[in-house]
Amino acid sequence: MAVQVGTSRAVTLAARPTGFPSESDFALVEQPVPEPGPGEVLVRVLWTSVDPYQRGRMSSARSYARPVEIGEVMTAQALGEVVESNDGRFAPGDLVLGQLGWQDYAVERAGALRAVPPVLDPPTLALHAVGGTGFTAYFGLLEVGRPKPGDTVVVSGAAGAVGHMVGQLAKLAGCHVVGISGGPEKARDLTDLYGYDVAIDYKNDDVRAALKEACPRGVDVYFDNVGGEISTAVHARLALHARIVICGQVSQYNAEGPAPTFDPRALIVFRARMEGFLINDYAHRFDEAGVRLAQWVAEGKIRWREHVTDGLENAPAAFIGMLNGENRGKALVRVASRA
Amino acid sequence: MAVQVGTSRAVTLAARPTGFPSESDFALVEQPVPEPGPGEVLVRVLWTSVDPYQRGRMSSARSYARPVEIGEVMTAQALGEVVESNDGRFAPGDLVLGQLGWQDYAVERAGALRAVPPVLDPPTLALHAVGGTGFTAYFGLLEVGRPKPGDTVVVSGAAGAVGHMVGQLAKLAGCHVVGISGGPEKARDLTDLYGYDVAIDYKNDDVRAALKEACPRGVDVYFDNVGGEISTAVHARLALHARIVICGQVSQYNAEGPAPTFDPRALIVFRARMEGFLINDYAHRFDEAGVRLAQWVAEGKIRWREHVTDGLENAPAAFIGMLNGENRGKALVRVASRA
Repeated sequence: MAVQVGTSRAVTLAARPTGFPSESDFALVEQPVPEPGPGEVLVRVLWTSVDPYQRGRMSSARSYARPVEIGEVMTAQALGEVVESNDGRFAPGDLVLGQLGWQDYAVERAGALRAVPPVLDPPTLALHAVGGTGFTAYFGLLEVGRPKPGDTVVVSGAAGAVGHMVGQLAKLAGCHVVGISGGPEKARDLTDLYGYDVAIDYKNDDVRAALKEACPRGVDVYFDNVGGEISTAVHARLALHARIVICGQVSQYNAEGPAPTFDPRALIVFRARMEGFLINDYAHRFDEAGVRLAQWVAEGKIRWREHVTDGLENAPAAFIGMLNGENRGKALVRVASRA
Repeated sequence: MAVQVGTSRAVTLAARPTGFPSESDFALVEQPVPEPGPGEVLVRVLWTSVDPYQRGRMSSARSYARPVEIGEVMTAQALGEVVESNDGRFAPGDLVLGQLGWQDYAVERAGALRAVPPVLDPPTLALHAVGGTGFTAYFGLLEVGRPKPGDTVVVSGAAGAVGHMVGQLAKLAGCHVVGISGGPEKARDLTDLYGYDVAIDYKNDDVRAALKEACPRGVDVYFDNVGGEISTAVHARLALHARIVICGQVSQYNAEGPAPTFDPRALIVFRARMEGFLINDYAHRFDEAGVRLAQWVAEGKIRWREHVTDGLENAPAAFIGMLNGENRGKALVRVASRA
């Protein structure tokens, strides 16, 4: 394969949004394809990712990671093909994963790249079911939520990239699993594709009444991707010793008013635990999760769906659509085909 | 000792308060001294208790225990002397503990009474440092908060019945301990009597600035007795993997407006855990806590203070004063002297 020459497109942050982002908060720029230095690798991006956490990186507010600066390429996990390698661990043609961003070409230190396991078919599984969102579901549900067989597990954002994995892992753990998502198509995915016992469509159902019916013995584990009013409704139905896993609060990421009040007294009444986590804290156990998830996917015990947008230039629209809940399954942007 | 005859006074709930209780929400009534039936014990109350949880029992809102009904004797833990016993486990003159309420005489099933361990001097220790509030501090701090040596532990309501025990247990566990309380006398108790490293007086100090100075590496364990704005200030200074123990929210028990907003996103940023508990869930381990606490008290490693109000008729005033934070140490009402 010839080394690519010419220009590389990138989507940069043009402005810090207040409230919901718009396409004008991003800019598509062109720059020369970068040159890898010693120990570095030039990667041609094939697939890049849009995820809720990226909304946080657009803000300058203090958080667990530094913000993307104005004019900087948007951060994103991506899957690409090695074009040129100055490190013995990688050779041209290798498929690799890394925080490569929304761009055509990226230069990265070899130590910050991971090889895509060849058993993964398609390789994009490494960006979701057998990658970050799968690991998030695995450790968030199993280590933070600690479900027991017979527990009732409720998942919000249940058809999303993390949510649809959580529901299936909870079924594998022997739980009664209730998913909350928006719209009849996603509700159908929950029960027909992912094996949820009950699907609640918050756009059309009375969520409180539906939760009451679906969780007659209360909610033992609430895996919370969304926050806001949906979570307030679930908090009202906790079982004793409930565990609330705070994975995301996507309903609040663009909110400009105050969040709904959470009253910690509920945690006393139900002797309940509310706990946040970040997947990075489990990096030393990614191999454990990856081996199990890959096997469950290969055996058909875990099903997945990709929501693909074509073209790097459409990454901002894909991102905004994901924040709007328009995706079914993992939202991905196809940047290029394999050479 | 002769069996008491005549009348028994009791303080009953006269009205359900909205907002802060007033003395008119209670009534002092007289009734004949009750007769114990088979398996029951007649107890003359010597000391009765005023505690924040009683505010919850005055409300008809759903909670972990049934409310006190209008006209019913206020529920309270009390220490008394057996007058007449129809059960082989107790004899006249024995000192016993039970949920005997705000009254002169109570009849209780023998199985619902516990003997006061004779090693306790004074016996009222069984109502606080080696009793309910001590057990609350022991299990809440050690089992829910899980402090490690070197951790920074912040306690709100730090000079109160539970708080002053928490601080001393945290010192025994090798922690840097910061207490928040109201007024200079309590602040002095924290450092001079209970061994807190730093005392913050929320009535006179800038709590946020004082916390920043006292907790340069952040807050590893926050033992929360009060909720409200003080807790909001502590939440802003969490360390990674912080544990927030929700013991009480006394600032909110009489609030009529909405509570300050708690944003669960803080739990993601700091990978933190917020957990409520009730001491009843640890009843099978009260002996473990009692033996250790009694020994630490006997050795002078745990110090305590009683805030005594004289006379059953003053129990409502003592209760209201406790909710106002007027007590230093455990608030008790002396009902009678030992025969």
